[in-house]
Amino acid sequence: MKIVILAGGVGGARMARGFDAIDRVDTTIVVNVGDDDLIYGVDLSPDIDTVVYMLAGVEGPLGWGRNDDTWMVMDELERFELDTSFRLGDRDLALNLFRTHMLASGVPLSSVTAAQARAFELTSTVLPATDDRVRTRVRTAEDGEWLDFQTYFVRRGHNNRVSELAYDGAAEALPAPGVLEAIGSADAVVLAPSNPFLSVLPILAIPGIREAISPKPVLAVSPFIGGETVKGPAADIMRALGHDPTPAGLAEVYDGLIDHLAVAEVDHDSIEGVEMHPTDIMIGSVDASTRLAQEMMEWLS
Amino acid sequence: MKIVILAGGVGGARMARGFDAIDRVDTTIVVNVGDDDLIYGVDLSPDIDTVVYMLAGVEGPLGWGRNDDTWMVMDELERFELDTSFRLGDRDLALNLFRTHMLASGVPLSSVTAAQARAFELTSTVLPATDDRVRTRVRTAEDGEWLDFQTYFVRRGHNNRVSELAYDGAAEALPAPGVLEAIGSADAVVLAPSNPFLSVLPILAIPGIREAISPKPVLAVSPFIGGETVKGPAADIMRALGHDPTPAGLAEVYDGLIDHLAVAEVDHDSIEGVEMHPTDIMIGSVDASTRLAQEMMEWLS
Repeated sequence: MKIVILAGGVGGARMARGFDAIDRVDTTIVVNVGDDDLIYGVDLSPDIDTVVYMLAGVEGPLGWGRNDDTWMVMDELERFELDTSFRLGDRDLALNLFRTHMLASGVPLSSVTAAQARAFELTSTVLPATDDRVRTRVRTAEDGEWLDFQTYFVRRGHNNRVSELAYDGAAEALPAPGVLEAIGSADAVVLAPSNPFLSVLPILAIPGIREAISPKPVLAVSPFIGGETVKGPAADIMRALGHDPTPAGLAEVYDGLIDHLAVAEVDHDSIEGVEMHPTDIMIGSVDASTRLAQEMMEWLS
Repeated sequence: MKIVILAGGVGGARMARGFDAIDRVDTTIVVNVGDDDLIYGVDLSPDIDTVVYMLAGVEGPLGWGRNDDTWMVMDELERFELDTSFRLGDRDLALNLFRTHMLASGVPLSSVTAAQARAFELTSTVLPATDDRVRTRVRTAEDGEWLDFQTYFVRRGHNNRVSELAYDGAAEALPAPGVLEAIGSADAVVLAPSNPFLSVLPILAIPGIREAISPKPVLAVSPFIGGETVKGPAADIMRALGHDPTPAGLAEVYDGLIDHLAVAEVDHDSIEGVEMHPTDIMIGSVDASTRLAQEMMEWLS
């Protein structure tokens, strides 16, 4: 069976880990690049790295960054006149330097990502949604200011209320090599329980991807439980943009794309056109994410 | 008294340290940028950093890089498919990331260098020779191949014979803000015992700098002792390019610029138009470099 997962952030990486653990499934993860940024002159692709680290089992204690990391470079960087509130561990920085070096040498992001996957001996395929530049920006409700993603998310700890989102460059971006092919040959497409607006919609905003997914069975996992999220600002952003942070709100945001939806037992309401699967959607452990992935594979049979 | 030092590499940094230690001297160091390079996507200015670290007393055991450095990032970088033979310590990398960040933000190299000097609380002024891009390239005698500087010097350990040198960009470069002003108001200009072809001539190749220096008393220190160098390939390069690695050869290469020349006792031959000062030119320690700088100040009185 071939599965394509659309993912971003820690929730996406955990869902990917579940499918990656099932031997009979050939998994491709298409990862959001809207969070990418240039920090300390270094090219970051946080969502790609979170997936790679998680699949390699070397993720940090909170799901992002590296395990057993050290902070020599950050500690020294504090000597200088610059904002060091974005903290990068030494090992994590090494991966980012590798990417920066390769991109500066003209290697496209998809090839860099493939080299990362080889370096960590992954068996699943990890693809950036695009090799082009897509940047999520967030407009604050407080003063109407547009923030780049990492300023909103990391530097300000997603404490601003969101009034509007933009996926700069998405409309002109091309799907990365392999993305449409993977979707085309997939038995199903999974929308991971990532933040819909910050992780999945920036992928779907790239022309051709939604169209390729539409005819496939689309299996989604709700990131909401009883109107809240396990972590992150997804529920707040849903409300701020006029949607309920519920399975029904999620189906609305994905606009008819979802065929099957895993929801928490408390969220068992029916949604027209969507087959509902109440289950345990907490996938913090390898076992829990593998169990959910296995359940989702059963929906297809 | 105002002194301007033209410097590059460890020899230049040691000479700068000597003048920096004399309270009554206002020292400006104009530093070679021909060794600058982009490595792992990071902007290196090795000669500037060697001067800054040496003046701050935080230089590495061999004169370059940082003291007490660690190698977390390099160790992790070895996981990936790239040439990691150029080794950067973690603390040293932090400084290079600061520069990379600032340059990417549009800050000129001279302002970045000033910020470095503030971060290390230097009292002397450190200026890059230019804010423009100058790159020393080396042609090998073995196969006529042109190498970029760091490939010649670090990756190949300056083991190639040199047939030709180029200072790409020098002819179109402008002296950095403050360089001509510092030279214009200086009581004397010092040519440090750096490699003439790799450290000092790339500075003199920038239009306006040699012209500003000519009318000033120019004090030089020979990097040669008995036809050899203390360290580095300066003697080999002199021979390869048709000059003796001696005080006379040095005067020839600097083409009439030198008024006073400190030489080793063994190299006391006279040179027309140059006042010779046989002395101890080994300046490995702070004391030795300060003693030599003090002697040089006496030549001016």
